[in-house]
Amino acid sequence: MIGGGRGAFIGAVHRIAAIMDGQAQLVAGAFSADAARSRASGADLCLDPARVYGSYREMAQAEALRPAAERLDFVVIVTPNHQHFPPAKLFLECGFNVVLDKPATFDLAEAKKLRAIVRKTKKVLVLTHNYTGNVMVKQARELVRNGTVGPIRKVVVEYPQGWLSTFLEQTGQKQAGWRTDPKRSGAAGCMGDIGTHAENLVRYITGLHIESLCADLTTFVRGRKLDDDGNVLVRYRGGAKGVLHASQISLGDENMLNIRVYGTKAGLEWRQEFPNELVVKYADQPRQTWRRGNGYLAPHLGRFTRLPAGHPEGYLEAFANIYLEAFRAIAAEVEGRRPPKDLDFPTIDDGVEGMAFIATVVRSSQRGAKWLKFPPA
Amino acid sequence: MIGGGRGAFIGAVHRIAAIMDGQAQLVAGAFSADAARSRASGADLCLDPARVYGSYREMAQAEALRPAAERLDFVVIVTPNHQHFPPAKLFLECGFNVVLDKPATFDLAEAKKLRAIVRKTKKVLVLTHNYTGNVMVKQARELVRNGTVGPIRKVVVEYPQGWLSTFLEQTGQKQAGWRTDPKRSGAAGCMGDIGTHAENLVRYITGLHIESLCADLTTFVRGRKLDDDGNVLVRYRGGAKGVLHASQISLGDENMLNIRVYGTKAGLEWRQEFPNELVVKYADQPRQTWRRGNGYLAPHLGRFTRLPAGHPEGYLEAFANIYLEAFRAIAAEVEGRRPPKDLDFPTIDDGVEGMAFIATVVRSSQRGAKWLKFPPA
Amino acid sequence: MIGGGRGAFIGAVHRIAAIMDGQAQLVAGAFSADAARSRASGADLCLDPARVYGSYREMAQAEALRPAAERLDFVVIVTPNHQHFPPAKLFLECGFNVVLDKPATFDLAEAKKLRAIVRKTKKVLVLTHNYTGNVMVKQARELVRNGTVGPIRKVVVEYPQGWLSTFLEQTGQKQAGWRTDPKRSGAAGCMGDIGTHAENLVRYITGLHIESLCADLTTFVRGRKLDDDGNVLVRYRGGAKGVLHASQISLGDENMLNIRVYGTKAGLEWRQEFPNELVVKYADQPRQTWRRGNGYLAPHLGRFTRLPAGHPEGYLEAFANIYLEAFRAIAAEVEGRRPPKDLDFPTIDDGVEGMAFIATVVRSSQRGAKWLKFPPA
Amino acid sequence: MIGGGRGAFIGAVHRIAAIMDGQAQLVAGAFSADAARSRASGADLCLDPARVYGSYREMAQAEALRPAAERLDFVVIVTPNHQHFPPAKLFLECGFNVVLDKPATFDLAEAKKLRAIVRKTKKVLVLTHNYTGNVMVKQARELVRNGTVGPIRKVVVEYPQGWLSTFLEQTGQKQAGWRTDPKRSGAAGCMGDIGTHAENLVRYITGLHIESLCADLTTFVRGRKLDDDGNVLVRYRGGAKGVLHASQISLGDENMLNIRVYGTKAGLEWRQEFPNELVVKYADQPRQTWRRGNGYLAPHLGRFTRLPAGHPEGYLEAFANIYLEAFRAIAAEVEGRRPPKDLDFPTIDDGVEGMAFIATVVRSSQRGAKWLKFPPA
Repeated sequence: MIGGGRGAFIGAVHRIAAIMDGQAQLVAGAFSADAARSRASGADLCLDPARVYGSYREMAQAEALRPAAERLDFVVIVTPNHQHFPPAKLFLECGFNVVLDKPATFDLAEAKKLRAIVRKTKKVLVLTHNYTGNVMVKQARELVRNGTVGPIRKVVVEYPQGWLSTFLEQTGQKQAGWRTDPKRSGAAGCMGDIGTHAENLVRYITGLHIESLCADLTTFVRGRKLDDDGNVLVRYRGGAKGVLHASQISLGDENMLNIRVYGTKAGLEWRQEFPNELVVKYADQPRQTWRRGNGYLAPHLGRFTRLPAGHPEGYLEAFANIYLEAFRAIAAEVEGRRPPKDLDFPTIDDGVEGMAFIATVVRSSQRGAKWLKFPPA
Repeated sequence: MIGGGRGAFIGAVHRIAAIMDGQAQLVAGAFSADAARSRASGADLCLDPARVYGSYREMAQAEALRPAAERLDFVVIVTPNHQHFPPAKLFLECGFNVVLDKPATFDLAEAKKLRAIVRKTKKVLVLTHNYTGNVMVKQARELVRNGTVGPIRKVVVEYPQGWLSTFLEQTGQKQAGWRTDPKRSGAAGCMGDIGTHAENLVRYITGLHIESLCADLTTFVRGRKLDDDGNVLVRYRGGAKGVLHASQISLGDENMLNIRVYGTKAGLEWRQEFPNELVVKYADQPRQTWRRGNGYLAPHLGRFTRLPAGHPEGYLEAFANIYLEAFRAIAAEVEGRRPPKDLDFPTIDDGVEGMAFIATVVRSSQRGAKWLKFPPA
Repeated sequence: MIGGGRGAFIGAVHRIAAIMDGQAQLVAGAFSADAARSRASGADLCLDPARVYGSYREMAQAEALRPAAERLDFVVIVTPNHQHFPPAKLFLECGFNVVLDKPATFDLAEAKKLRAIVRKTKKVLVLTHNYTGNVMVKQARELVRNGTVGPIRKVVVEYPQGWLSTFLEQTGQKQAGWRTDPKRSGAAGCMGDIGTHAENLVRYITGLHIESLCADLTTFVRGRKLDDDGNVLVRYRGGAKGVLHASQISLGDENMLNIRVYGTKAGLEWRQEFPNELVVKYADQPRQTWRRGNGYLAPHLGRFTRLPAGHPEGYLEAFANIYLEAFRAIAAEVEGRRPPKDLDFPTIDDGVEGMAFIATVVRSSQRGAKWLKFPPA
Repeated sequence: MIGGGRGAFIGAVHRIAAIMDGQAQLVAGAFSADAARSRASGADLCLDPARVYGSYREMAQAEALRPAAERLDFVVIVTPNHQHFPPAKLFLECGFNVVLDKPATFDLAEAKKLRAIVRKTKKVLVLTHNYTGNVMVKQARELVRNGTVGPIRKVVVEYPQGWLSTFLEQTGQKQAGWRTDPKRSGAAGCMGDIGTHAENLVRYITGLHIESLCADLTTFVRGRKLDDDGNVLVRYRGGAKGVLHASQISLGDENMLNIRVYGTKAGLEWRQEFPNELVVKYADQPRQTWRRGNGYLAPHLGRFTRLPAGHPEGYLEAFANIYLEAFRAIAAEVEGRRPPKDLDFPTIDDGVEGMAFIATVVRSSQRGAKWLKFPPA
């Protein structure tokens, strides 16, 4: 693991998600750019000190030399955005598979470079847009794919949070610090951190790609350097329309990622904070609540659920589902097999599209919330 | 009553709302442009045939001549939009108070003319933006006014319906017929019919006025002549931002008018389909659900509630609350008293702003969803 | 109207419910046992003073003498329980139809006498168990009747309120006063006031009759003279089991009448505070939310709904639905026609069963919460 | 681990819960009474075949001989109920700490014996009543303890499931098989499996102990040997009253454990299927929704939450919280330290009380749902 030391949030999430199903074990890490801090974090995690490194470069060098039996199957990168590309590039080129936190990179150019490296090295790169790991999200996609929803007309996706309603980054809070810092986070704040999740979720469920958009980003908290709120009108290729809004100043909201999809035959509604349910609405029959763990769900989704119906799964299980798929791909790569055909995880292609989204919303907003074509991938 | 005969929807609503509290009685009407139909509707309602008219002109003429004791206190106009201005003008000029269904008129120019007539005649004109009659909406406004919410940063209002997902107007359905007909409905379909409710609700609760907007309207159903969906980005005077979307092709949604208001101190959330509750969210304390009928609500709102807590009130009671206020204004006018200072109903000023909203969203959309300044009132 | 003067709650509800659909008009009343208070209430309601009476006896005498054209079609009795039987008897015997608030009478013996009088006079008696007027409750009954639910195994009905958590009757609050007074309310407090609603609702939806029960009633508030909480185990004829609990000390709950019915083929769930929805649960398909106003509901229930889907109806509309059916029966009686076959309102038979319920739960509890057979009707 | 091999449900849950926080590792097991099946399960789990045993006796013998460095810190027993006591006794007497699935034993006598063994061996025994691991349940207990709720008057706990609505045990389904078999499950079916969770949850949150109860158990599915439904009236020591009902024939319900607690100052409501929220209701202020992960929760509960607010935790995290506390106790025992004072997990005392609950409800029901005193612990 690269990053994810003391004080980090997403590192611990990755660790739980990766080990939950007993298929992986953490054995090495460079948990901080500060070598001492990295070692302390390694000790917290009871790792062999010999495999806790002062920097990711050191780690790549040392681990690449290990014998096959001890060799890492994959590396997880959970650093701030500006430190995604360099270690990802290095480990891929050293022959390691990579699990990478979102958004893919610092900017679009880096994402395209990374895509080229993945293609060249033929290694596995998994991008942890974790919300697509939710089994009811997968069921929603299934209902789009199997024609239940019909051609899609409209998508409303929203992601309000309230935790940055105040000038939190000035209190020394680590998460707020880097996420609002353009040097570490990139061109966007809120839209990069969570707007990309919203964009990715729409694409995952509906298969729609953005044709053009008009984004009005705002920095409400005085002194903040990046946007903390953004409202976007979207036109999808093929004629569907969309509304996408995300916010970190929506006071009192926690992590309220919601999506509604409206087709000509049915409407779908999923809410991240109540992830075990998916509402399906029809024109002329009662609306339905599909619930996780039931026999009427698509059979091939069975591998993404651990508990019977009514025993709530949550964020970690969804995250672990990304890992389950990562492991299938990685196992094939390690064993030199062809990857399974039904792999279901976000890739560097999603990453490029996500970075294009960030670049476009920022540019649109800077030009006065002007409509812009979405750049070709 | 003008309009509201057989086959109409809103006429019956007005009749129930107006009589619910025992303060008014229906005594005369011109229920249809078709004289026979008008008479049949009058008979349905057990009216004295002498006071059922073949046209509103006939009615205005006859009723104006009645002795004071028999004189109508007010006239209710519930015709399609193109037939709002002519009878409103006539009755006001004949000295009658008027209750007028929304949107105010066929277009902005008419609304401004009507405003001038109201000012000149000094009669009461009540515009039935009924959702502002909900007592929990009034409580939301109170929480903005008393500083609980703090300065407002963002407003999200949405009004999805699904009833026009198909080409319903071609089946002869009366409601669909006129509401999608530019000759009777005006420049907008969905945005005129329900988008204006959304705009009005924001203004009522927050007091915010639109500075500029960018609207992307769509007609999804082939053959339809007016928009059946619209997504709007809004900038309010003073710096707040907003998202407003309304739809009549959001399949499976019924009448899901929802509003969320985010201030620096609290967030509010109200959902029309569950109107007895108002959620108030804070940064650092549990979120609250305020429920109708409780002692902790603003005392002056007591007059807008009929039932104890837990005995659900709904759409009709909210509508009747508009009438309760109308009656207070009308009684004062009839008795030559000054109007009470705390009157709380939508006026022709709201009507002008609503028509300006329609005009602006249509124009913005026609120009490619371009940002436009909101016209001065 | 008998009772329902100043300070009453249910009188105003009856007045709104009765006039809501424009089919009735209040013309006479004896609104209080105190003649002056009765007259004041009549004046509040703008009645002809000649038809406002100092006592119900006076009213019966005078109104019985009026010519046919002016004759009351029915009388509404909304007095406390101990004043149900005397006026009901008198008016029925004077040839008037009667609408009577629940519970039917002061005790079971009176209820049986009243039943005999109804049978003898052949007048209409409508008992306002208003919750059965809810259209989604009617739909629930329909799903039992048409076999969707299958044979019923279990029913859970609960009715928690919290308004009597303190010794409110000592503050002079009028509602608390009579409802906790055994001289005016009868043998039971909470179980008489709302437990009977719960019992009636089960019977209405399921058609089940109680075979035996075991009731544990409690008076939690010191000084109170009647039960303010009761928990009942029920065995229904035919083998179904039930739980029925009601409370007026369930602090923070308002009027939370909920029912769940479990059959061999489906389960039903309806919550009074959100009355526009009915949840239907199946073994092997997604659960459904049936919503008021939709085309998939039983067509014959159309007459019990006034508004399109998504425009919430509430307590008053349900109450008005009882009146709508009352009017159909009364019109037939007044016109000497046979009553329609599909009349759907609670009768004196329901009243007798409700009073038997009260008598049995009180007796069971007094004997140490012992199982008792339900008395034959 | 004892039990939990192929086809089991709760074994996998224990494995995930135990390793989630990186504090434990599975190293040995006797996963089935069938030795071959045990070995196959061990292989599934990638264990060292040398530490996979054909029976728990074999395992106890072999593991007890291992050197201190390799010694198991604790043993997890997840067999059907009739196989709880024998291995628990053996491992405790061999000096191992034990984590034991609920209900504690096959019958009350065994539970008391086990209590004596625990006291004598001074080893740690943790009983996995997992629902008390939910952090919002812990917060509910805190609100009772700190006086927010006031003296408790009433508790309503319900646990409806629908999965045994049909004669599932005859299809060979393993879970249904042993849970409905009196030889493996004990005297009760539904009440033993989930009724005990309900009883335990009440006691955990409120601290109330049952004084007497009246239980009406039913076997609805023909051919089934144990109860599949039970309704219980409860009187708690000190005067509170309760309703407890549990069911496995509540068709369409999944795992709907809900609890409502009513005190003189506030009411609480928690629903297991939406475990991140706790509703707190007051007499004269808006009801509150307390949500997991927020700063206003009791600070000492911080150790039971892994994710920020709005990132839903579920069943596994609650289960893992039981393990977190188990680990604190076990670590102290292993290191010869005094146990921490604030340990928070269910013990054998809870187990005895749970088995007494089963014994009493069964006896009450057999005697015609008679009131019985709860036996002294």
